Amino acid sequence: MGQKPITFLRQVVALCSFPELLDSSSFPEDAKQRARRILQGCGGQSLGSYSASQGVDCIRQDIAVYIEQRDKGVPADWDNIYLTTGASDGIVSILKMLVSGQGRSRSGVMIPIPQYPLYSAAISEMEAVQINYYLDEDNCWALDINELHRAYQAAKEHCHPRVICIINPGNPTGQVQSKKCIEEVLHFAYEENLFVMSDEVYQDNVYSPDCQFHSFKKVLYEMGPEYFNTVELASFHSTSKGYSGECGFRGGYMEVLNLDLEVKAQLVKLLSVRLCPPVSGQAAMDVIVNPPLPHEPSYLQFHKEKSAVLGALAEKAQMTEQILNTVPGIKCNPVQGAMYAFPRIFIPPRAVEAAMSLGMSPDMMYCLRLLEETGICLVPGSGFGQREGTYHFRMTILPTTEKLKVLLEKFQDFHIKFLKEYASLEEPKRSEDDTQEALKQFR
Amino acid sequence: MGQKPITFLRQVVALCSFPELLDSSSFPEDAKQRARRILQGCGGQSLGSYSASQGVDCIRQDIAVYIEQRDKGVPADWDNIYLTTGASDGIVSILKMLVSGQGRSRSGVMIPIPQYPLYSAAISEMEAVQINYYLDEDNCWALDINELHRAYQAAKEHCHPRVICIINPGNPTGQVQSKKCIEEVLHFAYEENLFVMSDEVYQDNVYSPDCQFHSFKKVLYEMGPEYFNTVELASFHSTSKGYSGECGFRGGYMEVLNLDLEVKAQLVKLLSVRLCPPVSGQAAMDVIVNPPLPHEPSYLQFHKEKSAVLGALAEKAQMTEQILNTVPGIKCNPVQGAMYAFPRIFIPPRAVEAAMSLGMSPDMMYCLRLLEETGICLVPGSGFGQREGTYHFRMTILPTTEKLKVLLEKFQDFHIKFLKEYASLEEPKRSEDDTQEALKQFR
Repeated sequence: MGQKPITFLRQVVALCSFPELLDSSSFPEDAKQRARRILQGCGGQSLGSYSASQGVDCIRQDIAVYIEQRDKGVPADWDNIYLTTGASDGIVSILKMLVSGQGRSRSGVMIPIPQYPLYSAAISEMEAVQINYYLDEDNCWALDINELHRAYQAAKEHCHPRVICIINPGNPTGQVQSKKCIEEVLHFAYEENLFVMSDEVYQDNVYSPDCQFHSFKKVLYEMGPEYFNTVELASFHSTSKGYSGECGFRGGYMEVLNLDLEVKAQLVKLLSVRLCPPVSGQAAMDVIVNPPLPHEPSYLQFHKEKSAVLGALAEKAQMTEQILNTVPGIKCNPVQGAMYAFPRIFIPPRAVEAAMSLGMSPDMMYCLRLLEETGICLVPGSGFGQREGTYHFRMTILPTTEKLKVLLEKFQDFHIKFLKEYASLEEPKRSEDDTQEALKQFR
Repeated sequence: MGQKPITFLRQVVALCSFPELLDSSSFPEDAKQRARRILQGCGGQSLGSYSASQGVDCIRQDIAVYIEQRDKGVPADWDNIYLTTGASDGIVSILKMLVSGQGRSRSGVMIPIPQYPLYSAAISEMEAVQINYYLDEDNCWALDINELHRAYQAAKEHCHPRVICIINPGNPTGQVQSKKCIEEVLHFAYEENLFVMSDEVYQDNVYSPDCQFHSFKKVLYEMGPEYFNTVELASFHSTSKGYSGECGFRGGYMEVLNLDLEVKAQLVKLLSVRLCPPVSGQAAMDVIVNPPLPHEPSYLQFHKEKSAVLGALAEKAQMTEQILNTVPGIKCNPVQGAMYAFPRIFIPPRAVEAAMSLGMSPDMMYCLRLLEETGICLVPGSGFGQREGTYHFRMTILPTTEKLKVLLEKFQDFHIKFLKEYASLEEPKRSEDDTQEALKQFR
């Protein structure tokens, strides 16, 4: 999408990959120092060796230091840190540990709707029971504690709810959870003895000045030892998001809390079947948790590059929301964080009927038409889940500002054309319909 | 273990990681050309982008060309190539596709004994049925077709055998399969409609002058179209073995044959849950299948480094076998290929009893004692499987020749001490025992 890599990160990975470069004067000293530290932690001082299945020791130590700083002193034990092959690998591994039972005792996993489809795919693959809790679109996609209770009580009838998954900041919904909301979720998990999986891969992607990232772990700590020493928690981070966007390196880590020692032993056993996460991805993760410090030679450039990426994302988040909300029949919540807008589209009933007759979900038909007519690829909301009868799409805010503007204009033209095509023959009796309401603005 | 990385491979990975180096005069042109080709195949020309779940197109194309050359013209279609996160990831993914059913219809997976424990671990995790076929220790660990029939017939009583796994060259057993043996296995798979999984990660590691690597695919082709167009086959390769030994990059690929198109669609869907294999591992894989050519500037150095690694491994394979066979109570088959010796150890009955009383397998006790007394770490045969009442260990031939000599001498001293300790009170009536026989040589 045109986002430039962070120079310092790539320098460290290149130095680790080909250590002869450590003698080159064209690399800054702090990058060399990071590379030497990582290599000293590797078997045979080489990225080419298997690491321990849990990851390279010194990288796990750096991650623990990072978490302590992020969470204002809440202790982090590097024995609880596991490097992973991207966050997905960690999420799937933890789910594997938690799924068991048959029939009514089969493990149930609570996930937000809309969700990132890794969750539904993994749950389906493991034949666990998916328990949907719906985010509140009318309240900026906030998590509503009453909805959690409703979903839990309903699911208890046919499965054994054991896990609650949270994505914060949200994918695809872009909301950032308030501290109060997180406290409610953790209290609920404590009461119902649920394992909490907190997907925090967008922790660096918070744009709205009214929002702040709170880690589930920090909030749990602040709720007191009765919570902090009891609730089982796994949280996930990744090299793929934030300001680095290094998806291809497949770097990530998870931190677990309050896991029984025997369970941890089984977890390491499970992870060891795949030997170890890619060591170059581990090195990339190390740079993200251990970036240049203000007194180091690479600091200025690093800081400039990081600010440029995050500043542009914040600008594009706001722009995307604003432009989408000028389009009749589109309603977009603020993009508080993450990398996506997930607007609601009001699809005219005749278009819904046309899609049904093609055996296709209406938002899929909408997105396919958009792709065919403009070359713009959006992902239909049905891929993430949505309340029945509502339609959405997910759109990344990643293209450059200039491209994004062109894209949003093209999108607007398409949308108006689409509405005209399907709404012109609309009968007046349906005027109470959302679509009609949207069309009023438009006419 | 002191094995030096191949310079060319590391140069290409470093160039791909930090493309500013493409302007540096300290890198050879052929390395730059490889890096440019790989980067052009990557989204945004960056290792940091997700690749397609099946891998980078041009790398899949290079792999197909490599396979065709290796197999003397047998056609390879790059649509059948999938990059993986090491070979393990591919093996687990294919097994996942094949395991289904309940009770007597549950999928059975035939694996060699001794085996590489990835297989038993994955089978156990998926709750498939493990079907053991024993390799013939008296015949250099060859695969015996009669034993395959025996194992299959016995298993049919309680499961649905669907897959046969072969490791060639063998891990931990080091044998290289003859063409005739491969033909027999493929004919058996054809007759019984079994999916063939051929683990060929040691295809470059053949040391014995009497042996040659034959790919299962090539042999299948030579058996004629009735076989080549019918038998479902997946074969696996990796960056972790051969002469490169780049385990940490988690690179690998698999090639599938005769998979139904709908099955292939499901396979891609399954793989896409984890997004993509690490792109730096894909780049490393590309170098292995597309090394410098004789007219290119890096050829001489590459060839020298490759020959040095493979030459040393061949020497160490022979040395390990020879020295181990001079030790009383140790019997070691030739290390024809791969990276391991898997000798039989004759453990005195009193040592067996001592181990049992500790609730430990005798070879585990043996290896723990060795570790404690010498610092040498061998893996007990019980971790790989062995015929009941026999004991083995796996030992890599990877240390430098000098270290390996010291190691083998220390091992010999330990072993003799161990025999003395446990055999001195042996009663004569047990003289028919293997251990006694071995001890005779020793006294």
